[in-house]
Amino acid sequence: MSATEKTADQARVEVPLGARSYDILIGPGLIGRAGSKIAARLPGVRAAIVTDEHVAAHYLAPLQDSLKDAGIQSISIVLPAGEKTKRFDQVIRVSEEILDAHLERGDAVVALGGGVIGDLTGFVAGIVRRGMRFVQIPTSLLAQVDSSVGGKTGINTAHGKNLVGVFYQPALVLADTGVLDTLSEREFRAGYAEMVKYGLIDQPEFFSWLEDHWRDVFAGGGARVRAIAQSCQAKADVVAADEHEGGHRALLNLGHTFGHALEAATDYDGNRLVHGEGVAIGTVLAHQFSARLNLASPDDAHRVAAHFQSVGLPTKMADIEGELPPPDILMNHIAQDKKVKRGKLTFILTRGIGQSFMADDVPSSEVLSFLKEKHPQ
Amino acid sequence: MSATEKTADQARVEVPLGARSYDILIGPGLIGRAGSKIAARLPGVRAAIVTDEHVAAHYLAPLQDSLKDAGIQSISIVLPAGEKTKRFDQVIRVSEEILDAHLERGDAVVALGGGVIGDLTGFVAGIVRRGMRFVQIPTSLLAQVDSSVGGKTGINTAHGKNLVGVFYQPALVLADTGVLDTLSEREFRAGYAEMVKYGLIDQPEFFSWLEDHWRDVFAGGGARVRAIAQSCQAKADVVAADEHEGGHRALLNLGHTFGHALEAATDYDGNRLVHGEGVAIGTVLAHQFSARLNLASPDDAHRVAAHFQSVGLPTKMADIEGELPPPDILMNHIAQDKKVKRGKLTFILTRGIGQSFMADDVPSSEVLSFLKEKHPQ
Repeated sequence: MSATEKTADQARVEVPLGARSYDILIGPGLIGRAGSKIAARLPGVRAAIVTDEHVAAHYLAPLQDSLKDAGIQSISIVLPAGEKTKRFDQVIRVSEEILDAHLERGDAVVALGGGVIGDLTGFVAGIVRRGMRFVQIPTSLLAQVDSSVGGKTGINTAHGKNLVGVFYQPALVLADTGVLDTLSEREFRAGYAEMVKYGLIDQPEFFSWLEDHWRDVFAGGGARVRAIAQSCQAKADVVAADEHEGGHRALLNLGHTFGHALEAATDYDGNRLVHGEGVAIGTVLAHQFSARLNLASPDDAHRVAAHFQSVGLPTKMADIEGELPPPDILMNHIAQDKKVKRGKLTFILTRGIGQSFMADDVPSSEVLSFLKEKHPQ
Repeated sequence: MSATEKTADQARVEVPLGARSYDILIGPGLIGRAGSKIAARLPGVRAAIVTDEHVAAHYLAPLQDSLKDAGIQSISIVLPAGEKTKRFDQVIRVSEEILDAHLERGDAVVALGGGVIGDLTGFVAGIVRRGMRFVQIPTSLLAQVDSSVGGKTGINTAHGKNLVGVFYQPALVLADTGVLDTLSEREFRAGYAEMVKYGLIDQPEFFSWLEDHWRDVFAGGGARVRAIAQSCQAKADVVAADEHEGGHRALLNLGHTFGHALEAATDYDGNRLVHGEGVAIGTVLAHQFSARLNLASPDDAHRVAAHFQSVGLPTKMADIEGELPPPDILMNHIAQDKKVKRGKLTFILTRGIGQSFMADDVPSSEVLSFLKEKHPQ
């Protein structure tokens, strides 16, 4: 936590990546101060703001005004909202509009939105003129604590999600915690699941703190800023140790193997299951599976499930509305996500709260038996 | 030259970029040995070969056989030949075919062709699964001495050339000097102009050696291997010092500001002027312009022109067939290529043979007067 600085209601987390180090500023009202923050770090830039229709309705005008007040010329590109925007056709459209405006390599591309906008815009910023400056203004809790840290950008193809992209670090991230007040309770909870994950990876005291203070985090104010800052710091530490996902970074996938399988099994239908809910169920399953393998106490799985339940997150497959495909189909989704080598899988398991680790020899037969046991039908 | 190793007819140049360092192997017959060279460095990979129709007719089957003999499974993607292939639609097509074949991040994308294939394929390799392994097998002299070293990849858009791309380093470059025997004399000369450029940047003894041995280089054999290796080493040295084009790398643009303007002025019509010819004329102009600014002796410009003439390259605007636009239009092309700041341009100039430097305060009025003086009409 050494690089985290806090004032009453604002925090700064530094992501230490040598010449590509950058700051994440966290606090309420940052969109209104975006112009001065950007101008201070990137003097003389012009900017292309990329956002979606929903976010634009609330925050585009304030951001444009803030840039203008700081003397930053900008253009705005407003895309359709939703996952379908993360495709090559929108990459081409945004690239062409940036070039139409004669923006140069030293100018900035600003992503104003959730994960879809951040992932797409980061990819565009990484490839136009072989890399322009990139500023992230994440407007969902999930984007603030997860996708805006780490430099993964990308789009979907017919073959799957995030299959095309680059590793590209922003020059600055502005996480305006005030915008989270306009999120639905469900969206906020989904982002919260990722926060809990950081505690469960390797910060047991953060998990305990969330158990005690989650109501304050949901209510906003200093506790929310602190929790977001700690989450960003946790991810930044992992990314700094393993920028291009060689090994250690895999721990960030705690709960995600089961979670992705459930998202795929529900056809990515956000009415049935959003990503963070899949992560919540997947994280509980990862703890239960670790207990089944005699790696951890079943009490830890109970404790994790109890916390997710208390904030209103789902914790088991039966919590998902509608019918799920049978266990062997779920197993196929897992095998697609993770390469199976001679019947063995790589899996993030745990020895207890905050003691996760990467196991690369999990028999797929064990996973299937476990899924059969937990499957609601 | 420390990292260059030579045997009778093969050389190895190491591009020193830390964890991303790689070898360039140079010599005849390397396509036939590609399989074993790749298998030795990237054990267990599968491969996607990307090439164009012209190159495929000569070299695809030998490359496929070589990979097969080394136990490397491969698919082949054959694209239309020509600059129009460097576009987003082909990026999408190649990406989809690689994903169709279930190639993973650790598998290799192999570019078999000239600069167009290398630039497009490198871009695809850099973005599919956020970066796969990339092997270059350049089949033109220009690609062997220029575009296959340095990690610049990219495609063209409606706004101009190479405006979208990434910096992405290959894992291995195989420069098969035998394939150059099938190039037209004109193509070989065009690549040769870039070799001469390396001597003129900062290796006066290499320029002198080329003056004495250019017939041997054109004839093939050991002198050709040596000249290509020295060119790759020269570019590798510059790239290692400045991978992402902050400053020093700009020296590689010696002759290119005038050259690009002439290419644009002839609508990139390869019948009238190919890139290397533009570089030859541009390099002579850069030396003449330096003399006009009293930076270098006019004798140096004469010497450069005399050498280009002796190998059959054009050296002045009048050598270009057909009419050229007037000087002020040429000046506009230069201003588009280089940003003009308060009437001043950044230009690569020289104090003599092998003494080039970057000047960032060249008055555009001086450039225009010079163009008027040298313009044939």
